[in-house]
Order: sequence, then C-alpha cells, then structure tokens
Amino acid sequence: MLKIDNFKSIIDKYEVIFFDAFGVLKNYKGLLPDIGNTFAYIEAQNKEYYIVTNDASRSPLQLAESYHKLGLHAITSDRIVSSGMLAKEYLDLKVHDGIVAYLGTENSAHYIDSSGLHTLPVGAIDESNIERVNALVFLDDEGFDWFKDLNKVVNLLRKRPIPVIVANTDYAYPVNKHEVSIAVGGVAKMIENIVERDFIRFGKPDSQMFMFAYDLIREYRPITKKEIVMVGDTLYTDILGGNKFGLDTVLVFSGNTLPDAAETQMKTTGIVPTYICESAVIDSGLF
Amino acid sequence: MLKIDNFKSIIDKYEVIFFDAFGVLKNYKGLLPDIGNTFAYIEAQNKEYYIVTNDASRSPLQLAESYHKLGLHAITSDRIVSSGMLAKEYLDLKVHDGIVAYLGTENSAHYIDSSGLHTLPVGAIDESNIERVNALVFLDDEGFDWFKDLNKVVNLLRKRPIPVIVANTDYAYPVNKHEVSIAVGGVAKMIENIVERDFIRFGKPDSQMFMFAYDLIREYRPITKKEIVMVGDTLYTDILGGNKFGLDTVLVFSGNTLPDAAETQMKTTGIVPTYICESAVIDSGLF
Amino acid sequence: MLKIDNFKSIIDKYEVIFFDAFGVLKNYKGLLPDIGNTFAYIEAQNKEYYIVTNDASRSPLQLAESYHKLGLHAITSDRIVSSGMLAKEYLDLKVHDGIVAYLGTENSAHYIDSSGLHTLPVGAIDESNIERVNALVFLDDEGFDWFKDLNKVVNLLRKRPIPVIVANTDYAYPVNKHEVSIAVGGVAKMIENIVERDFIRFGKPDSQMFMFAYDLIREYRPITKKEIVMVGDTLYTDILGGNKFGLDTVLVFSGNTLPDAAETQMKTTGIVPTYICESAVIDSGLF
Amino acid sequence: MLKIDNFKSIIDKYEVIFFDAFGVLKNYKGLLPDIGNTFAYIEAQNKEYYIVTNDASRSPLQLAESYHKLGLHAITSDRIVSSGMLAKEYLDLKVHDGIVAYLGTENSAHYIDSSGLHTLPVGAIDESNIERVNALVFLDDEGFDWFKDLNKVVNLLRKRPIPVIVANTDYAYPVNKHEVSIAVGGVAKMIENIVERDFIRFGKPDSQMFMFAYDLIREYRPITKKEIVMVGDTLYTDILGGNKFGLDTVLVFSGNTLPDAAETQMKTTGIVPTYICESAVIDSGLF
Repeated sequence: MLKIDNFKSIIDKYEVIFFDAFGVLKNYKGLLPDIGNTFAYIEAQNKEYYIVTNDASRSPLQLAESYHKLGLHAITSDRIVSSGMLAKEYLDLKVHDGIVAYLGTENSAHYIDSSGLHTLPVGAIDESNIERVNALVFLDDEGFDWFKDLNKVVNLLRKRPIPVIVANTDYAYPVNKHEVSIAVGGVAKMIENIVERDFIRFGKPDSQMFMFAYDLIREYRPITKKEIVMVGDTLYTDILGGNKFGLDTVLVFSGNTLPDAAETQMKTTGIVPTYICESAVIDSGLF
Repeated sequence: MLKIDNFKSIIDKYEVIFFDAFGVLKNYKGLLPDIGNTFAYIEAQNKEYYIVTNDASRSPLQLAESYHKLGLHAITSDRIVSSGMLAKEYLDLKVHDGIVAYLGTENSAHYIDSSGLHTLPVGAIDESNIERVNALVFLDDEGFDWFKDLNKVVNLLRKRPIPVIVANTDYAYPVNKHEVSIAVGGVAKMIENIVERDFIRFGKPDSQMFMFAYDLIREYRPITKKEIVMVGDTLYTDILGGNKFGLDTVLVFSGNTLPDAAETQMKTTGIVPTYICESAVIDSGLF
Repeated sequence: MLKIDNFKSIIDKYEVIFFDAFGVLKNYKGLLPDIGNTFAYIEAQNKEYYIVTNDASRSPLQLAESYHKLGLHAITSDRIVSSGMLAKEYLDLKVHDGIVAYLGTENSAHYIDSSGLHTLPVGAIDESNIERVNALVFLDDEGFDWFKDLNKVVNLLRKRPIPVIVANTDYAYPVNKHEVSIAVGGVAKMIENIVERDFIRFGKPDSQMFMFAYDLIREYRPITKKEIVMVGDTLYTDILGGNKFGLDTVLVFSGNTLPDAAETQMKTTGIVPTYICESAVIDSGLF
Repeated sequence: MLKIDNFKSIIDKYEVIFFDAFGVLKNYKGLLPDIGNTFAYIEAQNKEYYIVTNDASRSPLQLAESYHKLGLHAITSDRIVSSGMLAKEYLDLKVHDGIVAYLGTENSAHYIDSSGLHTLPVGAIDESNIERVNALVFLDDEGFDWFKDLNKVVNLLRKRPIPVIVANTDYAYPVNKHEVSIAVGGVAKMIENIVERDFIRFGKPDSQMFMFAYDLIREYRPITKKEIVMVGDTLYTDILGGNKFGLDTVLVFSGNTLPDAAETQMKTTGIVPTYICESAVIDSGLF
C-alpha cells in the first residue's frame, strides 16, 4: 500500500514549490476546486512557487491571463517556465539571422520572436525563401494543415540541414475525461522517424526545464536543490525529471496517474517520488 | 569498387524473377524506358515473374491496369503480390464479423472487402457503431483528414482492443526527383508511438510478402527458393527481405539507391545483394 | 472477465496443433504434470502436432531426447521446428563458403553445420582467418566469454560487412520461479545498438517460423491455415505471431502470462487470442 | 566544402573554453602532440578552461593525475567535470541510506562514496543485503564478471524498484586505431531493453553536464552562455549537447569524426557546429 502524505506539511518543508500545470492545478474541466487555497498558503508562509510546464502554445503572459480568467489571480507570468521559453532561448543564442519556420498557431509564434529573426509558418515557405530558413520549431498541434504542411516539413529537412526544435515533449494531452489529442511532440516524432534525425526537444523530463527555473530563482536569492520540491501528476515527465535534476518530488493523483496504477508503474519504471498526495489542494480550514 | 553484373545473364540462371515495382519498373516519370524488353525476354525464355510491392493503395487488377496504360501490357494482375493482399488475407482469416475501419481512399478499401465484414472510413466511426469496430487498417496516406481522423484513431484504439493492420511498411515514397511524400506506414508509426502499441505490419522486408508469392507459384508448379531471384532498388526492404527469405537478390540503381551510396550502405548495414546491376532493363538488341 | 475455454474441445476443432515449448509443455520444474495426456489424445484423435520454439541451443534430435528423458516419449524430432533450423536454412541457401563464426556452445553449433561451411567460435577468430568469416550467428547465451567475445564481435562487424543471424528472438528466459537469465537475443540487441545495424532475427513472432512448420506439413498432406491452432503462453511471441500468420490461437496460463495480467495486456497491446485456457493439459478421465 | 577555422582566433573570442577529453586532448596513442601549447595560450590570455567528459571510471583527481603523467601539467582536477560527478550529485541528493550497488572497478566506486551510503559491487549482493539496495550505478565496463553480474542485475531490478544511474552515455570507445571497446553505456542499454525500463543517464549530450560546469564557473565569477565555447570531436555528443545548452561549438577532426564524413553527417543529422578546426592544437610559434 502506498503511503499518502499531507500536502500542506510538504510545503512547510521547502522554500520553493515547482508545480506542473495540467493535472495538478487544472484539468479539462478547469481549475481544481480550492487550488487557490494552496497559493494563499504559499504566500502566507512566504514560500515561492514556479509553474514548470510543457506548454509551448502560448507565452507566459497569456498563460498567466488564462489562470486569472479561471479565477486564480495569484499566478504571475514571471513565475511560469514553459518549454516554449527554452525554445526562445535557443533561438536567441544559436540562430543569428534568417527565417524561423514553425508549425503552430500565430499566437504560439509571437513569443518566440527574436531580434533579427523572422518567423514564418511552414505553409508560407516557398522557393523564394527556403534558402533563408535557418531553423524549424514545432510549437502547437493546431494552426496548420497536417497533410500539406507535414509533407512540406519532410522535404524542407531533406534540403536544409537546420536545427529543429520541439517545444513540447508530450505525445498526447487529455481533452476530456475519456479522450486525448495528439500533441505536437507526437507529430514531431513521426517526422523524426521519416527523416531519420533526432530533434532538439525541450520539456520535462529534460533537466534544462528545471535548470531554467532554478536559474531564475538564483538571480534574486540564494537557493539549493534541497530547498525545492517538484509537484506533478506524471511519473515519466514531472517525477523522473525532478528526480534526475536532484529535487524532491511529489506525485499527485489529480491528473494522469491513478492510485491503482501508480504502485505498478513505480515498480516497473523504478521512478519513485519522494511523496505521494491525493492532490495539491489544501483545505482552507487548515490555515 | 562494386562489380556490376549483366541483368540478362542473371535472368538466365533462375526460373522465377520477383520485381519490386517503384524504382525498378517505374519511377515518378513513368515506366523505365525499354523495361518492356525485359518482360519480352522473360516470356521468350519461358521464365516467370512476380511483382512484389508494398503498395496497398489499389487492387492487383487496378495496379495491372496502370501498367497497361503506361504501355507495359505484359503485366497481368495474377502476377502482382501487394502488401494489401496480405491485409486482406488477415481479415479473411482472423476477423469474422463487424466493422473494419480504415484510413485511405475508398478505392483502397474496396479490395479488402471480405464476406461478412463491413468497411468504414475512420471519419464515419461514431458512438453508434464504435462497439462493432473489430479491426483497423492503414491503407493509404490520402483520402482522409489527417488532423481529425488521426486524432480519432488514437481515441478509437484507447477504447477498443482491436488488431491494427498496416498494409504498407514504407515511411515515405518519392513523388518527383527531389521530393517525397509521407507514406501511410510513417503515419502509422506516429500512432504506434502515441498509443504505445506495435501494429501488425505487412510488407517487405517481412517474409510473409515473399511467402505469399512463393505459395502462389507452388499452387501450380514445383519450385525451390534457389530458383527465384528478387530484384529491388532498396537494400532495407527488397534485398534484406529477399535475403532473409533465402532468395538470391539483385540491387539495381534505377531507384532509391545510388551507386556512390550503395557501397557505404552495404558496409554499414551488412545487407549485401547477390548481384548488382545498373537496372533491370535489357537492351532489345540482345535477344 | 475472461472466458476460459476447454482445451480438449479446442483440439477437436483443428487438424494440427502448434505448441510453444517453454511455459506450455514444460517449465523450470520440468514437464507439466499430465501433459502426456494431451499428446495421447492428439494421437487417439488422429490429429497432428508441431512444437514451434525459439530455442536454438540444441538440435531437434537433442530437443526430442530431452522430452524423452523427462518422460514424454510421444515427441519426435521431425515435429520440432526451432528458430535454429531457420538459421541453418539461411546458411544453406545464402552462405556458400568460408567460415561461420558463432556465439554459443559447441553443441549449438553442431546442427548449423552446413556443407562447404566451417563453424568457428568467435573466440577462435583471429587475423589468420577473419577475412574468411562470411556470417555470424548468435546461438546461445552460454559457451563463450561475454566480456572478451562480445567486444570481439563488435570489432569483427566493423571490419566485415557480413550477415548476422540471431537464432533466438527472446531477450530473457525463466530459470526458476523468481529469476530469469539473459537470452542470446538480448545480448544480440546490445550489439545491434553498438554497431548501429539490424540483424536478421529468426523466431516467433516472425512469420517465417510458422511458415517453416506449415511447409513441413504441406510436404505430405494438404492443409489450410484454418485447420491449425497455435498454443502459447506469451502474447507478444506466440499469439501475435500466430495471429499475424493467420492462425487461430490459444493463450494458456501455465507460463509467462498470469490470468490477472492477461486482461490488461490484451487491452493495451491489442493482441487477442482466439481462445484462453488454464493450460494445455487434458484430464485423462476425459477420453 | 567545409570552411576550416583557426583555433587560436576562436579562443580569442571567448572567456571560457570547454574541452571534450578523448579525441580532442588525447587519443589511444596518448596526448595530442603540442596540445600543451593550447593550455599555455589559454593561461597567457587569462582565459579559462573546463574538461567536460563522459568518463566515470575515475575521479577528477585521478583524471588530472593521468594528464600530468602524460606531460600535461596545466590540467587541475577542479577544472574537470565528469559524468561520474553527476552520478555522485544524484546519490548525494536523492539516496539517503542503504546500499548503492555498482558495476565497475573498485576505483570507479570510490569517488561516488557518499555520507550515509555504502557502495557494494553487484557481485557482492546476496539475499542478506538485497533489501537494503537503494540504487544501482553503471560506472565502468571493467571490474566485474559480465555473464554472472549482468544476469544478477536483471534479477535485482525485477525485485527492487530502485533508481538506476548510468554514469557514461557512450556505447563504445576507441582502444586503438582500428578497434573499439563496448562502454558501460552500451551494456546498460542491453539491460534497459531486457527489463523494459529507461535508466537515468548522465553525460553529453544531456544538458546537465554543461549546466554542472556552468554552475561551477558562476560560483566565483559572472559568465553568460555567449562567452563559452565547447570543443569536441563528436557531433552527436559534444556538438549537439553544446548547441542545445546554447553554447557556440567547435568540431575538431582529431578524433571520432573525419573531414570526409563530417559534411555528410552534418547534413543528415542537422547538427552543425559554429566552427570547424583541424584540431585544438595551437602552433607554439603563434604566440
């Protein structure tokens, strides 16, 4: 039997709490009821939080706004670390000119805009500009014609030896209780198989996500890995990534992983969280 | 340096010649000039031929007609073995009732029609019929909405533990000198990754393709594997598959594999044909 | 809940029964008690059987003897089809001269002896003979020095572009109730990763195993796939392979797959047997 | 044609130079002749260096000594970052008590010693202590019995759901001009396949290696990623890893990658270094 811990007492032991977004703070129905309590408690205790998410479809500003609309006003954009931000950092540091082709919505492309670079949807690549394409980014599963543009991508990569960045490592994401949608990370995997290349993937479980958040904290205060705990609903991304980076970790049952399956999965994968909680919600009567 | 053999003298040594279609008999421009000579010679010498192809988009009858239209009248439908025929055999033997959902054109679905089974495009699956879906077949990369129907397939497979047949193992196929299209085998691979299942794949290099042709011959005459030679343009499908089944093999340079690359590829893969020829075309002056 | 069928009534419906060996007829403790009844019944009913096994460590003659020693005298060597026999057929048809290097016991090498070929353990390959090595076969996980000979194999394959045959597709096999041993198929997979090549693998679930047995039958009598049933304890090899070849299949719980896990596995893999039985043992009182 | 840059002028543009060890500073014959000049120039220019290596077989102190013995006295242990150090950090942060089982030499195990933990070779695990084994580390390909201990590891992992750390991501390493040895990363991959788990791998191209070195610098001085350049001989580890972390990169031809192959590899992999140099050696007459 799995030992279930109390989430409030876990917060008490750490200085900074990293949260996965989907399955931890919200799900397909909206915010988790009373998750606002958790952020009130974090503020009251002078703790800090970061949201570490494999969501590259929108900018941190837009992601923060989406929480406000749902009624969670505590979230600020400077506390959101997304795989899209790593994609942007890569482009800033490594691609100095030309065109960045992308698959995704116009919205997802806005925030990877980088000085000196021009973003262009794959659909707009043609013979007149293909020679100036210096990178390709997979941002979102929507906003393009799968048949036409994925075929175009395969031929683009046969002609141009450019870096390809996948800003979301997930293969699928839930859209309601019983159904999932193919994520852009799953689409990218198909192209990797066809062109026989490994793309550059940003997102949990890769350490670079955690390092990005860790660096943000260190810019204004000292911190050690022992003072941070990562909270997530998925063993293979949140818990594995947090463990590998050296953080303590909390598995919650409010998303992908159900209690019944958790024990088996932990046994077969060897991915074991430091703590297990029903959810990240704190009862308001507790403080 | 690779030793180049004379194709005519190879024919002389065998009773039956297996040909790959694309890159051997035809390419994106149409038939290989003078390939008709080869079939005239085969007939004159009382040899036999089979076309062994990973093309499940049309029936053998339609495939034969397409050769006739191009001017190669020697090809008859009973000598064409396609991966689609193996898909059909599977359905005949293993799926006894209900609906076979498919991805592909209506045309590709016609010939997998099997007594007692009802074929239905994935786009037409809904709550009223999903419980009767007993198999899913990937037939062609055209004829469906990639975004909508591939997402639908993922959710279908989460609900129904049914066999999935991929009637084309190729990931991509050439459409002109410089460009390829994603084949339905590549699309199927994406879905395999997402649902974490291995589908049933028919097509070279799998032995079952060769066995199917071998069995067709044995129905009307005795034959041994030593009397058959497989001619193909691709080391990984035609030559590997032929070798593994125990046939002698001929690599030709009229398709996928160029002379410069062949030597390196043979060295790194260990896939070595019995013979190498420029093409399967015989000079008409030779006989 | 899974519906459990009566094994005797399944035999009644088919002409030929294919059995997996390990987990069906025997396990680490020896023969399954009363499995002899099953073969007595098969004989009494004028049915036929074949044993279709991924065991390349011994010849069919030696395998048959091992059953006799255990007390099952009904088994004759002509009814045993092993992945090692496919390796031998490959060498007979495709390797015409020189040395066949092998990993395995001397015993396992005996029966791949082929006219014109010389078998040599990898440990005996040196500068004086390496140029004559024309094939490499993985036969058994015992009989060689893993550290020395596996390193030797990697360097042999960097120098010689030869076919590599793996005569056992399994990664591990049970040695007692709680422990397994690494099979030579698992060892071969390591070498494939290191030299970045795909080897030629014979063994279930590959169709060539079933085709070999099917061909043996057709040499002396007419048969169709509908008249054969495959009995195995492993979904991924016995059942998948049997299904793909077009046979009806029986999953038994006397080996690898336990009743509790079977339902989940069938759901997640989509590999579904035609029947499920507790075991292949028939109560002697039944006939 | 590839443009070849001058290594000295590259050093001039950066504050810190990261070097891969094998193939850049040394090879199977020993130190690269005159590589000492490069370190003299780095010191003269007040630049800094780090050695970032996938070598977990020895501690930084022992690695530094090995350079001294070869005659390169400039190397100090505080400038060596090895994948073994990340393994040690993981154990320090994540494994709080019990036994750490390891595969490797005693030497390789010394430096992962961590307060509160007890290291034990896999060969010494038995029924009396297996319940206290809380982690397994792959350190070196030598120092253990491959047959006996790898089989033991498979069974250990079937019984204990513990984290497994692979302190070397390489599959093979060169031992002389024509031969390689299987690295412990290749051995670990075999076990991953057999137990169907993904282990925690430290080493290039993973970002955590670069982050570790980057953090070491930031402890005593400010630095940005733009001021660091990574020098390596392997596209897939050094260059891909450096690029992904956001560093400029230099491919040298003194090791794994030959000029002829580089252009093809860059085209097929899309992994392109910022610069290409013959080697990291500077002519002493140049400064």
